[in-house]
Amino acid sequence: MKWIAATNNFNKLMEIREILSTYGIEVVSLKETGFDIHVIEDGNSFDENAYKKAIAVYNALKLPTLADDSGLEVEVLGGRPGIFSARYAGDNALDSDNNKKLLEELKGIPISKRRARYVCTVVLIKDEDKVYYGRGECNGYILDEPRGENGFGYDPLLYIPELGKTFAEIPSELKNCISHRAKAIKDLLQQILYEVK
Amino acid sequence: MKWIAATNNFNKLMEIREILSTYGIEVVSLKETGFDIHVIEDGNSFDENAYKKAIAVYNALKLPTLADDSGLEVEVLGGRPGIFSARYAGDNALDSDNNKKLLEELKGIPISKRRARYVCTVVLIKDEDKVYYGRGECNGYILDEPRGENGFGYDPLLYIPELGKTFAEIPSELKNCISHRAKAIKDLLQQILYEVK
Repeated sequence: MKWIAATNNFNKLMEIREILSTYGIEVVSLKETGFDIHVIEDGNSFDENAYKKAIAVYNALKLPTLADDSGLEVEVLGGRPGIFSARYAGDNALDSDNNKKLLEELKGIPISKRRARYVCTVVLIKDEDKVYYGRGECNGYILDEPRGENGFGYDPLLYIPELGKTFAEIPSELKNCISHRAKAIKDLLQQILYEVK
Repeated sequence: MKWIAATNNFNKLMEIREILSTYGIEVVSLKETGFDIHVIEDGNSFDENAYKKAIAVYNALKLPTLADDSGLEVEVLGGRPGIFSARYAGDNALDSDNNKKLLEELKGIPISKRRARYVCTVVLIKDEDKVYYGRGECNGYILDEPRGENGFGYDPLLYIPELGKTFAEIPSELKNCISHRAKAIKDLLQQILYEVK
């Protein structure tokens, strides 16, 4: 099985590829297709943005296409940065800019009150009539300084109690097994499995 | 979806249940079916033993049935205890007896030469014509004393380099994501996914 990954984000592509490879599903990047498709992510939810990306690529290629939209929701910030996670500190912000901005916003709040969750929606358009959604979450707390060198996004700041670590402190094989993205993909595969008689 | 787990081993049942629940598949134990089925595991491989267990239960119940056979293979012991892992120190041996016997057999051998792997085969009989096999492995080294309180079997002795820990030192959610059993089940689900058009 081969799916196109409708993302221009290299880190997401690598994770999606690693996760799906454990199910024998090959991921072809947008770059490898030769198409250059940029989608304005102006939806009101992770689901809407993921679908926008998937359908744009599907319409161009007519091949099974997977897209992902994901972000960090911090409780005391009313769910921010949410769908704006990647550009929290402005368009073209680096992960380090976004992390810095988040730490500033949370200044003075004790870690025990900094509950947050990573959220991920994946959508697979298999063909015109077959659209699947998968959703996953990972709960934790925002630390007061980054820990670890792995991963990307807010990984160094989100402490996961079950791990006793941040996602930036564990190897990618482990992250790709338990992350919000891994869970969302499992949830999606589950919908497909249910169709098998 | 509901599958019968053809095992009388409580620990295996719990793990299979936890792993499959993440895919929305409900596991019914042999005990819950009211049937009392004991199978002599005299096959020559994990595959043969797993199939023996699955078919015995499937024939009695005519419902989709999953069985597991698994064990530890130690390189310097020529692959022992292998399919005899659960009764290495004799019939009705406790995990602690088996662990003790393994440590005795490996006495004097440095840990770096104690390469070992956990192996698991799962077999699903969906109906007479549909039999699926899944296989998974986890590689590591046998320590010279047990570490950790979780898990079962040889978990406290098998050090997994990627984790920097034994399976007995990590929470079950994590073990059930990366263990030989989790991998075998993923491998099996993969076969089923491939049938979806």
